[in-house]
Amino acid sequence: MKLLEERIRKDGIVKPGNVLKVDSFLNHQMDVELFNEMGKEFKRLFGDRPINKILTIEASGIGIACVVAQHFQVPVVFAKKAKSINLDGEMYTTKIESFTHKKVYDVIVAKKFLNKEDHVLIIDDFLANGCAVAGLIDLIQSAGATVEGVGIAIEKGFQQGGDIIRGKGIRVESLAIVESMDDETGTLSFREQ
Amino acid sequence: MKLLEERIRKDGIVKPGNVLKVDSFLNHQMDVELFNEMGKEFKRLFGDRPINKILTIEASGIGIACVVAQHFQVPVVFAKKAKSINLDGEMYTTKIESFTHKKVYDVIVAKKFLNKEDHVLIIDDFLANGCAVAGLIDLIQSAGATVEGVGIAIEKGFQQGGDIIRGKGIRVESLAIVESMDDETGTLSFREQ
Repeated sequence: MKLLEERIRKDGIVKPGNVLKVDSFLNHQMDVELFNEMGKEFKRLFGDRPINKILTIEASGIGIACVVAQHFQVPVVFAKKAKSINLDGEMYTTKIESFTHKKVYDVIVAKKFLNKEDHVLIIDDFLANGCAVAGLIDLIQSAGATVEGVGIAIEKGFQQGGDIIRGKGIRVESLAIVESMDDETGTLSFREQ
Repeated sequence: MKLLEERIRKDGIVKPGNVLKVDSFLNHQMDVELFNEMGKEFKRLFGDRPINKILTIEASGIGIACVVAQHFQVPVVFAKKAKSINLDGEMYTTKIESFTHKKVYDVIVAKKFLNKEDHVLIIDDFLANGCAVAGLIDLIQSAGATVEGVGIAIEKGFQQGGDIIRGKGIRVESLAIVESMDDETGTLSFREQ
């Protein structure tokens, strides 16, 4: 998606350690007009799928997911990072490793919001090592629901997450795929799509 | 807002300890069409104010804030619950006490996303004791920015938060104000607005 690639070139900041800061428009300050254009694009890409629900994970996926959901006219469910696991059986749980925070989170969704009739589109801001998306897929499959696809704003194409998720036979559409980054020159290149 | 009051009566669950569960449409599963109607109403209520930014707090405020922001055509900034305080001076910080989780959070906003030219509308899902909103006001005032108002989905009118914030001379508009709840009958009453 050219609009997103141009925005990343303009406002993204390449930092050492393959860190791409996009906090001025994607995941701290959020440009909802850009999110709306992203929603149109995801609708174009996944419009052939019988999606009735969008699943994301707190916190930075929520804003994108809610604006995208308006184009599908479906509700959003966000998986929560649990403070303490509720053992009463009302939750689906999985573990997600965060490389940014060097921590493993228990992540939960109430069972009543995912069931086997659901056809789910996963939305998130980043796909890098794929841990968050793999955890969301695990939650959906625990419920016996169908993963219709994964819509990502920015994929780090030089990390393994995209290959892993696509290798499971799941359709992944990333609006921008960063092929390489150079923090010395502050430049990056995108995969042709 | 009648639509929200009716939805709370239909799908809200009154629990012991003055807990109102609205996780089927507001803060776990999210009804974005309802959020859109809430956005129209906030625009009607605050349309006379020169708002150029919306501030909310992770996680459950983000979805509402992003959909509401489309009606104001402004960006959203969400305050983050900090894992560790960054002491390099690039953040505004405040402390917010969560009664739900019985914990005090350090909450941060990057300084570059709040400045003295900003006219800010605060959006959140709940107003109860007012700690979260007071913390967001503190962040805005630290930046020398102007608080134009506070837009809340559900206010617990029998708790002190609404009085405290209004007592500071700040305009608070809550789309539904719960006056009382009875967990034995599962019923609640709303303040006439």
